Amino acid sequence: MRKLFIVTALLTLFGLSSSVRAEEGMWLFSSPPAQEVKTKYGFELTPKFLEHLQKSSIRFSNGGSASFVSSNGLIMTNHHIAESSLNKLSTPEKNLLENGFYAATLEEELKCPELELRVLLKIADATQQINSAVKPEMTSTEAEEARRAAMNKIEQEMSKSTGNKCEIVSFYHGALYHLYQYKILTDVRLVFAPESSVGFFGGEPDNFEYPRYNLDVSFFRAYENDKPYKPEHFLAWSANGAQEDELVFVSGHPGRTDRFNTIDHLMFQRDVYYPYLLNKLRRREVLLQIYSERSAEGALAAASDLFRIRNSRKNRTGILQGLQNPALMGVKYNENGTLYTEVGEKKLIDLEKNDPWNTISSALGTWNDIYIAYDMLENGEAFDSVLFKIARNIVRYVDEKAKPNEQRLREYRESALDTMELSILSTAPIYLELEYLKLADSLSMYVEMLGDAEYGSLSETPENSQNSEEENSEGLGILNGLAPKIRAAQLIQGTKVFNINERKKLLAMTLEELRKSTDTMIQLALAIDPTSRNIRAMYDSNVAEPMEQAYTEIAKARFALNALNKVNTYPDATFTLRLSYGKIAGYKDDDGTEIPAFTTIRGAFEHAKEHNYVYPYNLPKTWTSNIKKVDLKTPLNFVSTNDIIGGNSGSPVVNTKGEVVGLIFDGNIQSLVSNFIFEEVQSRAVSVHSSGIREALTNIYNTQRIVEELGK
Amino acid sequence: MRKLFIVTALLTLFGLSSSVRAEEGMWLFSSPPAQEVKTKYGFELTPKFLEHLQKSSIRFSNGGSASFVSSNGLIMTNHHIAESSLNKLSTPEKNLLENGFYAATLEEELKCPELELRVLLKIADATQQINSAVKPEMTSTEAEEARRAAMNKIEQEMSKSTGNKCEIVSFYHGALYHLYQYKILTDVRLVFAPESSVGFFGGEPDNFEYPRYNLDVSFFRAYENDKPYKPEHFLAWSANGAQEDELVFVSGHPGRTDRFNTIDHLMFQRDVYYPYLLNKLRRREVLLQIYSERSAEGALAAASDLFRIRNSRKNRTGILQGLQNPALMGVKYNENGTLYTEVGEKKLIDLEKNDPWNTISSALGTWNDIYIAYDMLENGEAFDSVLFKIARNIVRYVDEKAKPNEQRLREYRESALDTMELSILSTAPIYLELEYLKLADSLSMYVEMLGDAEYGSLSETPENSQNSEEENSEGLGILNGLAPKIRAAQLIQGTKVFNINERKKLLAMTLEELRKSTDTMIQLALAIDPTSRNIRAMYDSNVAEPMEQAYTEIAKARFALNALNKVNTYPDATFTLRLSYGKIAGYKDDDGTEIPAFTTIRGAFEHAKEHNYVYPYNLPKTWTSNIKKVDLKTPLNFVSTNDIIGGNSGSPVVNTKGEVVGLIFDGNIQSLVSNFIFEEVQSRAVSVHSSGIREALTNIYNTQRIVEELGK
Repeated sequence: MRKLFIVTALLTLFGLSSSVRAEEGMWLFSSPPAQEVKTKYGFELTPKFLEHLQKSSIRFSNGGSASFVSSNGLIMTNHHIAESSLNKLSTPEKNLLENGFYAATLEEELKCPELELRVLLKIADATQQINSAVKPEMTSTEAEEARRAAMNKIEQEMSKSTGNKCEIVSFYHGALYHLYQYKILTDVRLVFAPESSVGFFGGEPDNFEYPRYNLDVSFFRAYENDKPYKPEHFLAWSANGAQEDELVFVSGHPGRTDRFNTIDHLMFQRDVYYPYLLNKLRRREVLLQIYSERSAEGALAAASDLFRIRNSRKNRTGILQGLQNPALMGVKYNENGTLYTEVGEKKLIDLEKNDPWNTISSALGTWNDIYIAYDMLENGEAFDSVLFKIARNIVRYVDEKAKPNEQRLREYRESALDTMELSILSTAPIYLELEYLKLADSLSMYVEMLGDAEYGSLSETPENSQNSEEENSEGLGILNGLAPKIRAAQLIQGTKVFNINERKKLLAMTLEELRKSTDTMIQLALAIDPTSRNIRAMYDSNVAEPMEQAYTEIAKARFALNALNKVNTYPDATFTLRLSYGKIAGYKDDDGTEIPAFTTIRGAFEHAKEHNYVYPYNLPKTWTSNIKKVDLKTPLNFVSTNDIIGGNSGSPVVNTKGEVVGLIFDGNIQSLVSNFIFEEVQSRAVSVHSSGIREALTNIYNTQRIVEELGK
Repeated sequence: MRKLFIVTALLTLFGLSSSVRAEEGMWLFSSPPAQEVKTKYGFELTPKFLEHLQKSSIRFSNGGSASFVSSNGLIMTNHHIAESSLNKLSTPEKNLLENGFYAATLEEELKCPELELRVLLKIADATQQINSAVKPEMTSTEAEEARRAAMNKIEQEMSKSTGNKCEIVSFYHGALYHLYQYKILTDVRLVFAPESSVGFFGGEPDNFEYPRYNLDVSFFRAYENDKPYKPEHFLAWSANGAQEDELVFVSGHPGRTDRFNTIDHLMFQRDVYYPYLLNKLRRREVLLQIYSERSAEGALAAASDLFRIRNSRKNRTGILQGLQNPALMGVKYNENGTLYTEVGEKKLIDLEKNDPWNTISSALGTWNDIYIAYDMLENGEAFDSVLFKIARNIVRYVDEKAKPNEQRLREYRESALDTMELSILSTAPIYLELEYLKLADSLSMYVEMLGDAEYGSLSETPENSQNSEEENSEGLGILNGLAPKIRAAQLIQGTKVFNINERKKLLAMTLEELRKSTDTMIQLALAIDPTSRNIRAMYDSNVAEPMEQAYTEIAKARFALNALNKVNTYPDATFTLRLSYGKIAGYKDDDGTEIPAFTTIRGAFEHAKEHNYVYPYNLPKTWTSNIKKVDLKTPLNFVSTNDIIGGNSGSPVVNTKGEVVGLIFDGNIQSLVSNFIFEEVQSRAVSVHSSGIREALTNIYNTQRIVEELGK
C-alpha cells in the first residue's frame, strides 16, 4: 500500500496530468498542432507557413539538423554538427577545430568528405500499400519479409520515377507508413566555423547546462554541378531576434524518443539496456580520454569520437536518472495503467485473447537473452574499428548485391546502395594507432562479455576433452587463441582495407573470391557473418517484429481512444522532420533561483573570467581582442519551452513570420528525460540567439560576406 | 586437441619453466633468498645486512613504502605516496600539489593529518598458537571465530607487554602465521615535495611506461614528543648511485599478488571480478574527470581520488590483459596441473576424499552469488561518500565496542581501535559538492546492480500486491522511494557527521541512543547494518574460510613438495615487508627496440619539448629556469629486474653496501601481470636514480638543508 501512496503523492507534487502536456509534441508536418497553437496563441499555422518551414529545413546525415538561410544555398547549423567535418578537414598543421575557419570567397569554401544532406520535399501516406502486403496467414518472419519487400519496392520505384530519394518511414511503431521524398545534396562545403573554444565554450562541464554562452554555429553551402545550389525555400533573418514570451517554432529532426513505451519496456531500459550502454560508453570515454592526453596528434584523431561519446554518456546518464526517478516513472505507470484499462473497457483490443503488453514483455525476455551477442557481433561492437566496419560492409555488400532486391538486408537494398558505397569508399582519415587501441579494447570487452571458445578450455580436464571438437567448430575464430592486444595487432597488420583502391577491388569480387582473400579483416567479417546474421534474424523475428506488431496494436487503440477523446497527437521521434511550438521563457531552478531566458555576450566574458580563462573556459583571441568592438549587451543564448531532443541540434528557431530568431544547440539537464516523458516545468531547449550570431560574425569574425548574404 | 597444442606451443615460445623463475620473489625477511643470491651473484645476505635494511624500511598507512635516510628521522618516499597528504594540506590559495613544498627550517615542516607509519621491529612465528585454537570438531564458522579470537588475544597481550603495535599476519593463505611487532609513528611532517608536474611528469599517458623521466620523490620527517625521531637504523646515500648490471635489493611492501591462485580462481578473476571492478573504476573516473574540469576548486577536491582511480584502472587493465592472454594462462594451467598431479601422486592430499581445488571452485560459486551485494553494502560501494564511511564506522564502533574483544569484527578489536578512532576523527577536508555527486552516482549504481524494493513494484498489478507487504519489510530504506540524486541530497543535508565534535558525541553514545538520532547517515548505516553483517558472515563462513582452509592445504602440500625438490619459496604479497633482489638492466621492446636501463635529466627536457610542454608534459618553472645550472647528463630514472608490485612505491633500492641507489616508483606496463605471474623477459621495476634526486635537490630546488642531511 505504501508504494502506491508514494506514487500518487509524487504524481500530485509533480502536477502532471495524463493527457498531452502544455507545449509537448514533436509533430509531423503532415498533422501539425494547428488547433493547439490557435487555441493557446491565436496563431494560424497555415499550409504556406508549414511548407516554407519544411522546405527550408535540412537533415545532416551525421545526425543533426540545419536550414537554408540564403537563396544561394547557405546553410546554418551548429558548430558541433560541423565538428566531424572540421575534424576530417583538419591536419596537424591546420587544425580547424582549434582555429576555426572562414572562407573569404566562394572559391575558398572547403568540400566536406562523406556528408549527405536531405531536404524533405513531399510526404505521402503509404500505410495501406505496406499493410496490404502482409497477409493474416503469414508467420511473423514472413510478415516481416513481406513488409520489407513492399517497402523496398515502393522506395525503388518512386526513386526512379521522381529522381529524388524516396524512403518509407514508419510512425507509431508501424501504425503509419509514410513515403518521404527527399532532395539529396552531397556536395557540401564549409563556409565558416568559429573556434571550438567558443563553439563548445564550457565544454563537457557546461554541456546540457544553463545559463550558457556558446556560439555553437557554423555555416556550409550546398552545391550542385559545382555551383551554389538554389533552394526553393530559405529562411529570412529576423531583424531583432527572439523576444521574451514570444511564440516560436522549431523545425528539425529529433532523433529518438521512447514516450509511448510500455512500463515493462521502460523498466527493461532502466534495468538492463542503459546500464549496459553506459558501461560501454564510459569504457570508450576513458580509453579515448587517455589516448587524447598522450599527444596533440592523438587528441586530434580521437576528438570526434570522444566528443560524441561524452555527449552520449551525459545524455544517457540523464535519461537513466529520469528512469530511476519514481516520481516520473509513477506518471508513466499511471498513464500506462489508464490506457490499458480504457483499451480493455472499450474493447479496443481483446486483452484476454491477445495482450500486446504481454507480447512486448515476452519479446523483451528474448531480447534480454541475445542483446549482448547482437551488440557485439551484429552491431560490431566487439570490433570497434573503422577498418572492421569497412570490411564488414564490403563482405555484406558483395553477398547482398548478388540477391534479388526484395530479399536483401534493408541497408543493402537498391535505394540504399549509393549511401553504402559512399560509406565504404569514404576518404576520411583512418588513424592506425587509435584503430589498434580501440580494437584491442573492444576485443577484450568481447571476451569479458561472451568469453571465447579458446578461453573456456583451459580448465578442462583431459577426460572431457571429447567435447572440445564440437566446441571448436562453434568457435568463430575471433581471438584465434591469442590475447586481445596481440589479435588486434594481427588483424590490423594483415588488412589492406585502409587503402581505397583495395576496397574498390574487393567490392568488385564475388563472395567466392572474397573467401580466398588473405585480408585479415575480410576473413574476420566472413567468419562471424553466419552467426551474426542468425542473431539478427532471431532479433528480427522474435523481438522486433512481435514488438512492432504489439506496438502497432497499442498505437491503433490509442488512436481510436484519442479520436473518442478528441485529442490530437504525435509519434515518437524517428530522426524525421518534426515541428515543435513553444515560447521563450526562463524557469526556476531546484532551489528556487530564477533562471533568466537570455544570456548576453558580456556573460560569456564574465563566465570565462570566473574560470580564470582556463580550458574549457578559454575564450579565443578573436573574442578577447575584440571585447571593445563587440556590443556586450547583445543576447547570446536563450531558452524556450519547445519539445526537442538530440537530432534537433542545428534546428532553426523561427518566429511567427517564419524568420530565424535562433539556432537550437542543446537542452538543459532537466530536459534529458524528454526521451521518455515531457517535463514542462524546468525542461528547456537551449538556442544561440540570432542577434548574437550576427554580432559575432560582424564584430568578432569580420565575415562581411556572410552577414550580407544573411541580410537584415 | 588443438587447444592443448596451442597452450603447449605458446608455453614453449614464452620460454618459462614451471619452477621459480630468475629474479622472481617477494621474499620474507625471515626466510630470505640467501642461497639464490649467493649462487647467482656470489653475495652473502648476512643477518646484519637484513636487519639494517628491515629496520630502515617504513610502511605508509595509505598504501606505500618508504625508508629512513638520516639519523634525524628524515624519510624518503614517492611524490605520489605524499600526494594525499599534499592534497589535505593544500588550500585554494596554496596548492602544494601544483607548486610543491619545501620547509627551509625544521619549524616550517608541516604536520600531516591522518598519516601513520610503521617500522617492522620483530618477526615471530605464531602458527602453532593460532592453529591450536582451532579444533577438528569445529564447524567452519566456529573455526573462523576461534582463529580470530586467538589472533585478537595474542595481538592485545603482546601490544600491552611490548608497548609496540603487534599484529598477526598470515602467509601462504594461512599456512603460516607470524606476529609482527611494529614501531608506530603518527607525528609525520612534510619536508619537501616537488611540483606534481615533475613528480608525475607525463601523467596518465606515461604511467606504467618506460623510458620515464619522473622526479617522483618526497621527504617527510617522523617526530616523537614534538622532536625529530631518532631511528635505530637508516640508509646511507650512495656516492654514485645505481650502475648498469649492479645487484640491487628492494625492501618494501608489495600490496597484493595472486601468484598461487588456482586456475579456476584466476578464471573467476578474469571473467567476473576484474570486469566488474573495472566497470566501477571507469564509472568513477568519468565522474571525477568531469567534475575536475568544472573548476579549479573541483579539480583540487577530486585530485586525490582521481589519481588513485586512474592508477588503479590502468593497473587492473594490465592484469586483466594478462589474464586474457592464453600464453600466460597456459603457463598457470600447466603449473597448476603439475602441482595437482604431483600432490595426488605423492599422496600429499587425499584428493578423492577432499579436493581443495574443488573446495575453492565451489566457494567461488558462492562468492559469485554474493560479491555484488557484499561490495555494495559491506564495502559500502553503494554509498561512495566520506560521510557515509564515517557514519558506518561510528555505528559499528559503538556496536562492537560493547562486545568482548574476541567477538568483535577484526577492525574493531582493541588493538585496532586507535587506528579506527584516528580515521573516524580525521580532520581531512570533506567536499560537500563532491560528496553529493559521488553519493548520487553510487546510489544510482546500486539501483542498477541490485534494484530496490520501491523500484520493482511499479509494474505490479493490484492483484499480486499482497506480496508487497513482505517485500517492504525486506526493503533497506536505501532509496526511500526517491530518485538517487534526490536521496543523496537528503542524506547529505540531514547529516552532521562532517562536524568532528558531532562525531565525538556520537562515538560516546550507546547503540540505543544512536538509534534515536535523526542524523540521516547514521540512520542509513543502522538500517543496512543487519543485512550487511549477514552478507559478511556468509562471506566469512562460506567463501573466505573454506578458501583459506583449502589454500592452506594446497600451500602445505606445496611446501612439502618444495622440500622434496629442495626449492626455497615466498608467499603472495600481503602489504607486509618483503625483500626482492635483481639487477639493473634494460630490455627489448615488442618490436625488438633496445630500451636502455637509464634515462637522464636531459631526457626529461627533451621529452617535454617533444610534447610542446603541454600538460602533462609541462615541466615546472623551477626546472626550465635552471636548465643551465643542472647537470643534464645525471641519470634520472632506471629499470631493474626486481620483482615488485603496487605497494612497493617509495621502496628504497639499495646496493650491496646497503646504500640508497634509487627509489622505486613504478613498474613498466609489461610488469602489470606480476599480479599473477612473474614475467622475466620484459617486466621491469622503475626507479628514480639517487643521483638524479640529489642533483635536483641541489641545483633545481636549492634544498641545501636536505642535501646536507643526506650526506655524500
